[in-house]
Amino acid sequence: MVGTGLLGASVGLGLTAHGVPVQLADPSRTAVALARDVGAGQPARDDDPEPTLVVVAAPPDVIAQVVAAELAAHPAAVVTDVASVKGHVLAELRAAGIDLRRYVGSHPMAGRERSGPSAAVPDLFVGRPWVIVDPGDADADAVLAVRSLAVDLGAVPVAMAAAEHDAAVAAVSHVPQLAATLVAARLRAAAPAALDLAGQGLRDVTRIAASDPALWTSILAGNAGAVHRELVELRGDLDVVIDALAQAERASGPETVAPGVLAALARTLSAGNAGVARIPGKHGGSQRTYALVSVLVPDTPGSLASLLALIGDAEVNLEDLALEHAAGRPVGIANVSVLPESADRLEQVLTEHGWKVAR
Amino acid sequence: MVGTGLLGASVGLGLTAHGVPVQLADPSRTAVALARDVGAGQPARDDDPEPTLVVVAAPPDVIAQVVAAELAAHPAAVVTDVASVKGHVLAELRAAGIDLRRYVGSHPMAGRERSGPSAAVPDLFVGRPWVIVDPGDADADAVLAVRSLAVDLGAVPVAMAAAEHDAAVAAVSHVPQLAATLVAARLRAAAPAALDLAGQGLRDVTRIAASDPALWTSILAGNAGAVHRELVELRGDLDVVIDALAQAERASGPETVAPGVLAALARTLSAGNAGVARIPGKHGGSQRTYALVSVLVPDTPGSLASLLALIGDAEVNLEDLALEHAAGRPVGIANVSVLPESADRLEQVLTEHGWKVAR
Repeated sequence: MVGTGLLGASVGLGLTAHGVPVQLADPSRTAVALARDVGAGQPARDDDPEPTLVVVAAPPDVIAQVVAAELAAHPAAVVTDVASVKGHVLAELRAAGIDLRRYVGSHPMAGRERSGPSAAVPDLFVGRPWVIVDPGDADADAVLAVRSLAVDLGAVPVAMAAAEHDAAVAAVSHVPQLAATLVAARLRAAAPAALDLAGQGLRDVTRIAASDPALWTSILAGNAGAVHRELVELRGDLDVVIDALAQAERASGPETVAPGVLAALARTLSAGNAGVARIPGKHGGSQRTYALVSVLVPDTPGSLASLLALIGDAEVNLEDLALEHAAGRPVGIANVSVLPESADRLEQVLTEHGWKVAR
Repeated sequence: MVGTGLLGASVGLGLTAHGVPVQLADPSRTAVALARDVGAGQPARDDDPEPTLVVVAAPPDVIAQVVAAELAAHPAAVVTDVASVKGHVLAELRAAGIDLRRYVGSHPMAGRERSGPSAAVPDLFVGRPWVIVDPGDADADAVLAVRSLAVDLGAVPVAMAAAEHDAAVAAVSHVPQLAATLVAARLRAAAPAALDLAGQGLRDVTRIAASDPALWTSILAGNAGAVHRELVELRGDLDVVIDALAQAERASGPETVAPGVLAALARTLSAGNAGVARIPGKHGGSQRTYALVSVLVPDTPGSLASLLALIGDAEVNLEDLALEHAAGRPVGIANVSVLPESADRLEQVLTEHGWKVAR
């Protein structure tokens, strides 16, 4: 384990739980000590046996040089990294003329809102996709070793080429991050009264705008090509909306807006409908429709807990739960998703117990 | 009540619950009958007594003409509307030379994912902001009547000028809607394998992209000026990011990227941090920090319910709950937010009962 932050220490914890001996190394001695204390392994020593697999979990901008150093230091070991961009690591290794038979790239799609070894958990990767990038010149054994690592940690291995991976994360992770950031950045200029009108939609869209700027600067710079291509396309779509709104603004009223203008807005909104429908649902692709039961929850200690206990006692399987809070008022709304066939019974049970319910 | 869709019928239901007689009118006779059946009031008849307050809940593009007609038809009544844009309604009424002493605009910040009278609930407005727009020439009695309507329905009245309201909803509602739409629209071109890497961040950012295109076309066209201004600013910020990424792409590696380029990305990401921090938290402005306890939940019937029942039994007050689902795997993660002082006890109770917990 080279690098004992959140990801590195979580890999160490997971492997230790499987009885695999883990050697920990990190430029920060505090990080190594913390990782050891949470049970991620033992600090590496000069008289350790040679490792068979080296996992590099360093910041994206130093990954390539650390991978190269580990390949040289451990001539029999397979080396992988867990950086969230893959193309530029590979390009740097190739540019340095490194033999890549023992290198396989990884990207476990896992993370937490907290960072550092103290936030590490052995289950971090359970059920998550773990992208495996064979540069093309890796030995079959090396690919298998990294694949086994993913499986041992409970992740789902997904083989991808580096460029394919980088385009994918640009679309599903890096562009959404930037969209959240740009919308949130505009709020700096908003009046306080405007922010009091904020609803759940704004909170959802901007939640990830709270991400770490240093980490994300490094991720975006590392995937600059793919993110740039996506953003240029998005700007084209944005320009269509801006042009349509400029025309609508010039019209004296809705009935004098050229029909093509409204059609352009409607087309964009429909394209959004079509895109969001492609995101796989809970069960991996098959989006299931649940019935939504909305319950008014007073903001007093224990009231949400007692609602949830009641739902549990009713033996209704809660498929999803979203809480809405209203600014400045002692009440919230719990939107409970259940199987359609359970909704009537849940509503009946809740109403009988005095909860205000809406469907 | 003129217009008996979701909002109109919900107003009717709430007033009926207060013992106020409600007359229902809508161009759709089915909508009137449905609204009556859910208890929102009685269909208007020619021999009804004159109403004292007329609430217009029509689609945004016909609001002004309906308001004008109601002012003329009921010469003693106060008339309000609940459209989500206010400036263009007012401009149209002024352009038509209408006397506005009995007109006050409203915008209750409430809605549901479902629409129509059958989705109406009397508690729809409880705890929500209700913007009240006095055009400047309204009688004090008229403003008070509309304010009382909001209070009677449990909402929090917020006085704003029309332009101030329209700028506010552009920033906190219309621009976030378009950002979600544009990110989601790009997903149409993504490879299926890319979508399998989607995480909670993408789901949050794009959730509202599933909104009704016809309704939103009308909202955006009605607030074209304010939304246009916001989007042009956002495009300027986007261009900074696009330029920085283009420069980063041309550099041969992270160390050859000009320092100013990375600083531009970091500044944008930090601006997003600052913006999202301005969104009021649950208790109206004071953002409280909760401790996050993550629990692994097998996707089998009853498992989430039994987790929630256990949390309820432990008498820990659950402040928020977010579920993460992993595509194609029979396991999910429940992120439970509790007061920091309750986190240790919750973790202990859950662990004792065999749940896998991470902090």
